[in-house]
Parts: sequence; structure tokens; C-alpha cells
Amino acid sequence: MPATHPPRSQPEHDPSAHRTEDPSLSRIGTFSDGVFAIAITLLILAIRIPHPTDADAGQGLLTLLTQEWRSYLAFVLSFMTVGINWANHRVMFKIFVRADHGLIWLNLLYLMVGVVFIPVPTAILGAWLGDPNNQVVAAVFYGAVGTVGAVLFVLLWWYGAYVARLTSPELSARQLRAITISWAPAPFVIATLTAIAFASPYLAVAGYLAIVLVYILPVPKLVALGQQRRRASRRA
Amino acid sequence: MPATHPPRSQPEHDPSAHRTEDPSLSRIGTFSDGVFAIAITLLILAIRIPHPTDADAGQGLLTLLTQEWRSYLAFVLSFMTVGINWANHRVMFKIFVRADHGLIWLNLLYLMVGVVFIPVPTAILGAWLGDPNNQVVAAVFYGAVGTVGAVLFVLLWWYGAYVARLTSPELSARQLRAITISWAPAPFVIATLTAIAFASPYLAVAGYLAIVLVYILPVPKLVALGQQRRRASRRA
Amino acid sequence: MPATHPPRSQPEHDPSAHRTEDPSLSRIGTFSDGVFAIAITLLILAIRIPHPTDADAGQGLLTLLTQEWRSYLAFVLSFMTVGINWANHRVMFKIFVRADHGLIWLNLLYLMVGVVFIPVPTAILGAWLGDPNNQVVAAVFYGAVGTVGAVLFVLLWWYGAYVARLTSPELSARQLRAITISWAPAPFVIATLTAIAFASPYLAVAGYLAIVLVYILPVPKLVALGQQRRRASRRA
Amino acid sequence: MPATHPPRSQPEHDPSAHRTEDPSLSRIGTFSDGVFAIAITLLILAIRIPHPTDADAGQGLLTLLTQEWRSYLAFVLSFMTVGINWANHRVMFKIFVRADHGLIWLNLLYLMVGVVFIPVPTAILGAWLGDPNNQVVAAVFYGAVGTVGAVLFVLLWWYGAYVARLTSPELSARQLRAITISWAPAPFVIATLTAIAFASPYLAVAGYLAIVLVYILPVPKLVALGQQRRRASRRA
Repeated sequence: MPATHPPRSQPEHDPSAHRTEDPSLSRIGTFSDGVFAIAITLLILAIRIPHPTDADAGQGLLTLLTQEWRSYLAFVLSFMTVGINWANHRVMFKIFVRADHGLIWLNLLYLMVGVVFIPVPTAILGAWLGDPNNQVVAAVFYGAVGTVGAVLFVLLWWYGAYVARLTSPELSARQLRAITISWAPAPFVIATLTAIAFASPYLAVAGYLAIVLVYILPVPKLVALGQQRRRASRRA
Repeated sequence: MPATHPPRSQPEHDPSAHRTEDPSLSRIGTFSDGVFAIAITLLILAIRIPHPTDADAGQGLLTLLTQEWRSYLAFVLSFMTVGINWANHRVMFKIFVRADHGLIWLNLLYLMVGVVFIPVPTAILGAWLGDPNNQVVAAVFYGAVGTVGAVLFVLLWWYGAYVARLTSPELSARQLRAITISWAPAPFVIATLTAIAFASPYLAVAGYLAIVLVYILPVPKLVALGQQRRRASRRA
Repeated sequence: MPATHPPRSQPEHDPSAHRTEDPSLSRIGTFSDGVFAIAITLLILAIRIPHPTDADAGQGLLTLLTQEWRSYLAFVLSFMTVGINWANHRVMFKIFVRADHGLIWLNLLYLMVGVVFIPVPTAILGAWLGDPNNQVVAAVFYGAVGTVGAVLFVLLWWYGAYVARLTSPELSARQLRAITISWAPAPFVIATLTAIAFASPYLAVAGYLAIVLVYILPVPKLVALGQQRRRASRRA
Repeated sequence: MPATHPPRSQPEHDPSAHRTEDPSLSRIGTFSDGVFAIAITLLILAIRIPHPTDADAGQGLLTLLTQEWRSYLAFVLSFMTVGINWANHRVMFKIFVRADHGLIWLNLLYLMVGVVFIPVPTAILGAWLGDPNNQVVAAVFYGAVGTVGAVLFVLLWWYGAYVARLTSPELSARQLRAITISWAPAPFVIATLTAIAFASPYLAVAGYLAIVLVYILPVPKLVALGQQRRRASRRA
């Protein structure tokens, strides 16, 4: 684990090395995809697997499985959240046309907090939600990690789109702004739900679930609208 | 873990962005392949590794290993089942020529239940089969997860082929129907075996194994038939 | 986990679909590489991590770490063995020019026993070697899994090269035989070491290590020979 | 796990197989990327997840989480260290234009010690730092593994660039030397910090963190300098 000092700015900042920048970007994307795929699969480790030799095995397998419903809920919630992150990350890296040193490190920071760390708050939420003395801590911890992850995601976009200008020059300022507006509210929404968790952890968890559903549900409507428009334009 | 709202329909539904749809589809395929590869490897965690400091270590390593045969059976069964899912998923995504928002989310849902979650029922089946009071629950749980996974797989195909029409226009309705007919029975077969598990968990597990064998075994026959036909056409 | 019945022979055996066979082969290679990468990384789970709250923590961290030397040895041995398998698999799939249904299933079977399962005998060897009553079982188990893995590897090659003839037609029978001769002895060598493990588990482990070293060491010699030849041909 | 003997030197050393060497190199890079992505994600396993049934659960979740701060510190430190390794490895394999047998094995050795093994010293550092009798062992163990990893990284570069000459012939000796000078100090710096750990483990950990920060921080300056230059050249 050497903190070796490579010729770091060279491969990325050298304007003459224009051809090699695309593979660089795609390798970051592939690496990130791998981290997403592994982290989303490791979420399963948050679910306790009961054994016949466990102290509480006498309650029967059915009881042991059903009383774990909060772990299943936390698994589903985090799986879909990491999935949303992956889909958004995919969109972002399709907009970028090159990578630089700063993008690599902000991306790693984002992957660390917003993706790889998620199994920990997930397992804690699944294990402690329902414990009257500790469920507030569990739900606030879950929301706080989510908020920092969302902040880092927006920071990554802000750095790539506005600081290092890694996007295609063909993208208009208006298009950039539309994407920024669509992503910027997330940290505020999750931070608000985290604040709500202090008062009611279950309400906060319901809010986390609602975000996931809102993200997925409006689509049929949009698709229908799009089809209407296409039909209209064919008639015209 | 921000539930950020990206310009979601844009990269997929924008008809002008025709060139970018192929990489989008391939990135979903690559991500799915990663999830398949990780989930199939994590199945190994369902097998208990005895240690010399365990309470039952006095029985000897040989006894500890051989009495775990149900875990090995569950591992082999689930490994082959995930493998069949991977091979079928591979076939499905070779038929699709583009992706849309709905496909991404149905695919994630399928991966969550039909792939990533599998280590849990596998470990439970391996640990509780043979326990007279709980083996019915273990076998029904295993079959129920399998049934839902199969339903989601068929749903994914139905959405891609008939709702969003993501398949190549060159594919005839007859070819589509042939594929649908080959995939549609799976949920019903697994659901039937799950019902049988209520009466006899071992018979159900034998049925799960039989499906895997049926899937793999007829091939030599088909290959032989194919070779006969080729020989016949050469003679003609 | 549906055992869905896809149009299996179609994409592979349809001679008209010639263009799609290369991506099919490469997707099997990518999937296998993923499984290799995950299994080789999961070997780390065979190493016990001591905690200050453990019952034997009073012995001090240094003692706890050094007495685990057999686990480290088993980790290194299996890491290099999986690495050799990966390198050989890489060579094999570079020789194949297309895939068929049988290759997919034999490859999955090989991955199951020869790659994904390896962490289990590795952890068992590391934990039980040195236990006078059980180390024979541990070393024989390790060797037996290795033997079956080697048999499946050779079977995969035999199927692809001689039964389904998936290799390039440009490859001469002599070249095929050279490869077969280089791979065929492995199962016999490992089976012999497994037999030796019944008498002396440490001698068998030394033999497993020797195979790994033999595989890696002669290379400098070969490289030197190659350079001599090149120099000679330049002079001529 | 057969130690099968493939036609090893053939695909790499055969000068006539020139076209196949590029894919060979890229497959090593992809495999390494997979190992990096998995090992960096598995670091999360070093963080203990408290459960309501634990013996110390009475202290409350907040206390259990905050007293684990050393595990979080070790996780962040190792995540960034593996990230630096990945970025440097990416740079190195962009410089190489072909692979040979020696590169494959040195790369595997580096991955084994410098990447896959890292979760072990990370978990040990997180668990034992703060234990007055054992924290020196934990910090020295962490530094020693880091030193060996750094040595193997430099060895990999030295082999590829100077022994097997796998770099592009277009790269000048001066450019090679610049890269070597940027990477060579790492083992000495980490070895020095490891020696310091004998006297003060916390100072050593602060040093490990400082290396990571030094690696990441100067970049804004460099970027600013680069922008100044660009502006200057535009004016000229």
C-alpha cells in the first residue's frame, strides 16, 4: 500500500495526450461500476442468517425470519438507493468527456462514503430500528451518511461540470443548469429527513422509502407523455 | 446515497441520442454480470467453516465436514440456479438492442430478489433442512424466493419485448413468441414445487435439482440432433 | 432463481449468427475473470482477525498473529493456485474462437469447484494443519478439491478442443497436442500429492507449494533461452 | 486448483503473435481493476457492526458507534491508500504496451500483498490502536505490510520498464527516469514511518495519513498553476 507519487498530472493534464483521456475516463467508470456492483451485493450481509444452534433457535425458523423484517426493509431501501446512485453516476460519466486528477479523488471520496460505507448504516438500521432507546441514533446515522453521500455526489458534478469543465463543449449552459437543478435538491431533502429522524425515526424511514418510490414511479407518466408527443408529431 | 433526480428520460428516450443507447445497454449488462459474478461467489459464505476452537470440535474434522452435506447441496443447487439465470440474462440482453429507464429499474429489482438475495435462502436451506420442525419453512422460503425471482425475470422480458419494445425490429413476432414460451413456464414450475415443499421438503429440493439437471442434460441430445442434421444437409 | 428454459441452442449453434459468437465468448471470459477476481480476494476471509475482546487476547497481539502462520501459508498457496488457474484459463479462452452451450456449463462447473469453492479448503487447511488428529483430513480435503478442480479444467479443455472443436481451424493438431500435454499431468500430480497427504500432510503441503514454485520459477531460464536465440538469429 | 502447465511463454513471448499481446495486457488490467474494486469494498468488513444482542449493547448505540472511531480512521486510511495504489497502477499499465509471463506473476504477487491482504492489517489497526500493550504491534504490522506492498509496486515497475522493457519505445529514458524518481521514494518513506511506529504508533498513523493528504492536496495548486500558464499563453 505505497503512497507512491506518480507522474500524476501528466497523463490527465497533458493536452497532447488527447487520445488517451477517453480510456482513462472509461477505466474510472469501469472501476466505479465494479465498486457499485460489489457494494450492492454485500448489502446482503446486513441480513442475519439464523442457525439451529443459535440461542433463540427454539422460537422456530418462521419466527426468526419474520422478526427480521426491519433488516429486509433496510436491505431493499439501501439496494434501491445504491441503484439510484449507480444510474445517476452512469448519467454523469456519460456527460463527462475526459477525466483529471481531481475527478479521480473526488470520485473515490464519493465511492467511499456514498457507496462502500452504506452496508454499515444499513445493517445498523435493520438491527436497531424498533429498539426504543436507540432507533433515533440508527435512523439519524443512516440519514447523515446519506446526506454526506448526496453532498459528495453533487460536489463531484459541480467539480466536473463547472470547475474542471470535463463536459463536452457541445453541451449548452442551459442543459448543464437543467442537470444541476435536477441533482442539487437531493442533499437538502435527505438532510431534512435526517432532522425528522430526531423526532420520529419511522417517519424518516418512510421518507427515505418515498424518495426511492418518487424516483421510480413518475416514469410511466413521462413515458406516456413522450409517446403522446411522438404521436402528435407524427400527425403534424 | 442520494435519491438524486437525474435528467432520467433524456439519455434513454431522446431519439436523437441514438448512438449512445448501445453503450447504455452494454453498461447495464456489464453491471449485471458483475452482480451475478459476486453473488455466485458469495454463495460460498453459506458453508460453515469449522474451527478447532468450536464447541463441537471434539467430533473431529471429518464428522464436522460430512454432517454439513446439506450446505454443500444447497451451494451446488444455488450456484447452478444463479448460473442458469446468468446464461438466460445473457441471452435476453443479446436480444435487446437498447435500454430505457423502466428496464434499468426492473433489472435492478430482478437482480435484488433473483440474484443478490439468493445467498440468504441458500444458507437457510443448508442449515435447517433435516430439522424436522423447521425444514418445511426453509424449503418453502427457498422456493418462494425462487418463484418471485422467476416472475421478475419473465416480467423483465415481457416489459422489454412487448411494452417498451427494446428488441431488434428484425426479430419476428414468431421468434419473440418462441422465446416467451420457453421462459414463461418457469414461475409456474417453481411455484408448484414450492407448494409441494409444504408436504415434503425433500421432494421439493429434489424437484429444484431436477430443473437444473433438465436444463443442462438435454443438450447433448440437441447437439447430436444438430450434427445429424448438418451431416444430412451435407449429403444432400 | 428460475430455471427458465431459454432458446438455448439458438444463439450459440445457429451458424447464421456467426457475428454474435465472439461477444458471447468474451462475455463468458469477462464473467469468469470476475469470478476469479472475487474468489481470489475472498481468500482473505480465511485469515482470522483477532480482537481485544477475544478470550485469548491476553496472549498479546504478536502471539495471536504469529500462531496464525498456517493461515497465512494457506492464503499464499491458494492465492497463487487461483492465480495459476486464472492465467491458464486466460490462455485457454484466447485459443477458443467461439462458445457453445456445453462450454458455458462445463465452465460454470469448473468455476464452482476449482475457483469459488477454494476459500473453504483454504480456511480449513489454515485452521487444522498442526492439529495431530485432524490435519490429515484437512490436507486430503485440500488436495481432493484441487484434484477435482484440475480434472474439470482438463475436461473443459478436452471438450472445447476435441469435442465441440471451438478452437481456431488455423491451430494445427500438433499445437493442440502440445497444449494438451502441458495441461494433462496436473490432475495426476495433485492426486499423487493428495495420496501422500494420508501419510504426511506437511509433505503434501510442501508438494502443493512446490508445484506453484515450479510453475513460476523456470521462466527466467526460458526468457534467457529466448533472448539467446533471438541474439543468435540476429547474428545469423 | 490445478497447477497446470500451460504453453506459458507462447502467447506472450511469441513475436509473431504481436496482435494478441494488447488484449493480454488489457485483460491483466481488467483483472487487477476487479481485485482493486473488491478489496477496496471489503475494507468495510473491518468495521464492527454492533447488535442489540451484544454483551455491551447496554452502553447504547451512540457509545458503541463513537468508540469505534479508530476502525473508521483505519477504513478511511486504507481506502485512500488502496485508491492511490489503483491510480498509480492505472498509470503504470497505461505506460506498458505489452505483457509477459514475469509481469503476470509479479503483478499477482503485488496484488496479493499490496491490495488483497490490506483488510487484515486495517482491521487489526482499527481494533488494537489504543490498547497500550499491543498498539505498537498493530501499527508496525500495518506499516510493514505497506512497506512490502510499496517495494513490490516499485519492483513491478522496475521489471516492466527496465528488465522486460514492456514500455513504448517512444518513451525517452528521461521520461522513464522521471516516473521512477516519482515512485521510488515510497518504500523508504513508509519504512521510516514503520520504524517510528516502534516509538509512537499514533505518530506513525499520523504519518500514514499525511502521505495520503500530500498525495491528494498539492493538486489544486498544480491545477491553478496550469490555468495561470494557459491564461498566459492565451495572452501571448
